[in-house]
Amino acid sequence: MNTISLMMPLDMHLHLRDDDMLKVVAPLTSYTFSGALVMPNLVPPVTTKEMVKSYRHRIIEAMESDDFEPYMTLFYQHYSREFLESVQDDITAIKIYPSGATTNSEGGVVSFDIEPMRETLEAMSDLGIILSVHGETNGFVMDREAEFMSVYEMLASNFPKLKIIMEHITTREAVEMLDRYENLYATVTVHHLMITLDDVAGGMLRPHLFCKPIAKRPHDREALLKIALAAHPKVMFGSDSAPHPKDKKESCGCGAGVFTAPIALQLLCEIFEEYNALDNLQAFVSDNAQRIYGICPDYKEVVLIKHDFVVPQMYGEVVPMRAGETLRWSIERVD
Amino acid sequence: MNTISLMMPLDMHLHLRDDDMLKVVAPLTSYTFSGALVMPNLVPPVTTKEMVKSYRHRIIEAMESDDFEPYMTLFYQHYSREFLESVQDDITAIKIYPSGATTNSEGGVVSFDIEPMRETLEAMSDLGIILSVHGETNGFVMDREAEFMSVYEMLASNFPKLKIIMEHITTREAVEMLDRYENLYATVTVHHLMITLDDVAGGMLRPHLFCKPIAKRPHDREALLKIALAAHPKVMFGSDSAPHPKDKKESCGCGAGVFTAPIALQLLCEIFEEYNALDNLQAFVSDNAQRIYGICPDYKEVVLIKHDFVVPQMYGEVVPMRAGETLRWSIERVD
Repeated sequence: MNTISLMMPLDMHLHLRDDDMLKVVAPLTSYTFSGALVMPNLVPPVTTKEMVKSYRHRIIEAMESDDFEPYMTLFYQHYSREFLESVQDDITAIKIYPSGATTNSEGGVVSFDIEPMRETLEAMSDLGIILSVHGETNGFVMDREAEFMSVYEMLASNFPKLKIIMEHITTREAVEMLDRYENLYATVTVHHLMITLDDVAGGMLRPHLFCKPIAKRPHDREALLKIALAAHPKVMFGSDSAPHPKDKKESCGCGAGVFTAPIALQLLCEIFEEYNALDNLQAFVSDNAQRIYGICPDYKEVVLIKHDFVVPQMYGEVVPMRAGETLRWSIERVD
Repeated sequence: MNTISLMMPLDMHLHLRDDDMLKVVAPLTSYTFSGALVMPNLVPPVTTKEMVKSYRHRIIEAMESDDFEPYMTLFYQHYSREFLESVQDDITAIKIYPSGATTNSEGGVVSFDIEPMRETLEAMSDLGIILSVHGETNGFVMDREAEFMSVYEMLASNFPKLKIIMEHITTREAVEMLDRYENLYATVTVHHLMITLDDVAGGMLRPHLFCKPIAKRPHDREALLKIALAAHPKVMFGSDSAPHPKDKKESCGCGAGVFTAPIALQLLCEIFEEYNALDNLQAFVSDNAQRIYGICPDYKEVVLIKHDFVVPQMYGEVVPMRAGETLRWSIERVD
């Protein structure tokens, strides 16, 4: 195949930040995606109806297209049923972070004790609000996700009607968890399909591949590839694309995040082509998410062509993954 | 105890580099150590008698003391017995690197097949030249040292009279290997007694703690602490202190190495004090090495005092470990 047509691509895990950074990165996603689930970890985090509406407005303004839908999220706190009823039409999911697990997550939950969360999660379950989870403990960096599996089990079994998304999964353990509970789903990034810890710290140290959860072992990557390439019906693409300015990313003590938004579809074509799985790409980048989230994005067709594309060194102040390298697929047109 | 006296401290694994960098770092070691085993991975590597003598001369010139002995090493190649006989009085050990394993190791061996190495290793064994080994495979970064254990077994069993040093060990597997073969010994760095991968990449990415072998898991660190604190008779201190200029260390894709030379003894006092093992520090930093290597360093007494010491932000262009932090022990005087 020399061209691939993708209908209504969706990025179900995206960081757009705010202010000047938002203006740089928002158009890079809205160009090729029909919609994206927008993470709420701003400073301060998005926790009120007003903040959701105002952030959505800023996103719409920053987009250079009118055929893109930002699916909004709230930053998890213990919310009342009354509040959730009032905000449910403005949000698609609520994102829960363990405190300190990643960028701007300081206001997250300190522990996943079920009782303090019960009222909120029951109300979410009743109202059909999806729970999006950053699933890491505060343990040893290579074990954080695997250790978190018991929390997923606790959540999934106590709230069987609540749809729970294991975000940006990176381990075989999370892959194995998928089929154990009907109400567990997952997003997978494109970079975790491509790299392991070896790429981050096996040769030179590569800050632009440093992310949370950190890339794991070869067998973990293989497990992720298997479900993504098969477009496992409970798995969706979510880039977790996260822009950090170059100087901050390369200075001593850099933040976590890989910026892939403008090259995600091209990379996915490369990967799915390499494994003869291009037929499943549509389901992985859109159909599964539409069904899981019950969303109906506006029409957008993205046509990719097998033609070399040299990734820019920078988008604004942000260095993308594979900067300066040549990809085998380009965006030909967007209809 | 408020003062500690260390007699003839030895650093049995040290990188001094060359030229301007040598001039900066050499005095920082010669001030507090009686001697150090100097690694041969220059560009080009130290592979001839002339290069050994010339490098030794440059080191002596760079030192600001006349009571320091640089124990010289050759970079492993398949050397003839005749050559080894001619150079044996100028060297203390031969260092073998797997090709590409770390900084300036490109000329190392591509594989550890025994037959091509037999002549050299038999001659070394007969002549009493010690084999110093960078023990990592080219596998997944967290497994490289553990995977290398079969090479140590092969070397130790085939050349039972050859003294083999497992350099800068970082894993429980290497610790367990120590007592399995009479002719296996090990060096342990101070940073591997202090950090795990969590410190390098568990929070922010910290390039100044990035080294090879990379810091491993908590249980590995505990295994290293156990043998160091006990001054296991086959274990010696070797800092693996490796200076990289700040700009190279912090730029995208930084080299591997932690710079500890000027603070190593202070840090060791902290660690041994914390675990009530100060009585064993003398054996760990000198006596074991004297016995294993059969060396008799000139008299030097280093007195440390329990007095705060703020680590400089830089030594020349090099950022040390713990830069700007306060250590609990200082060098009081050197006699």
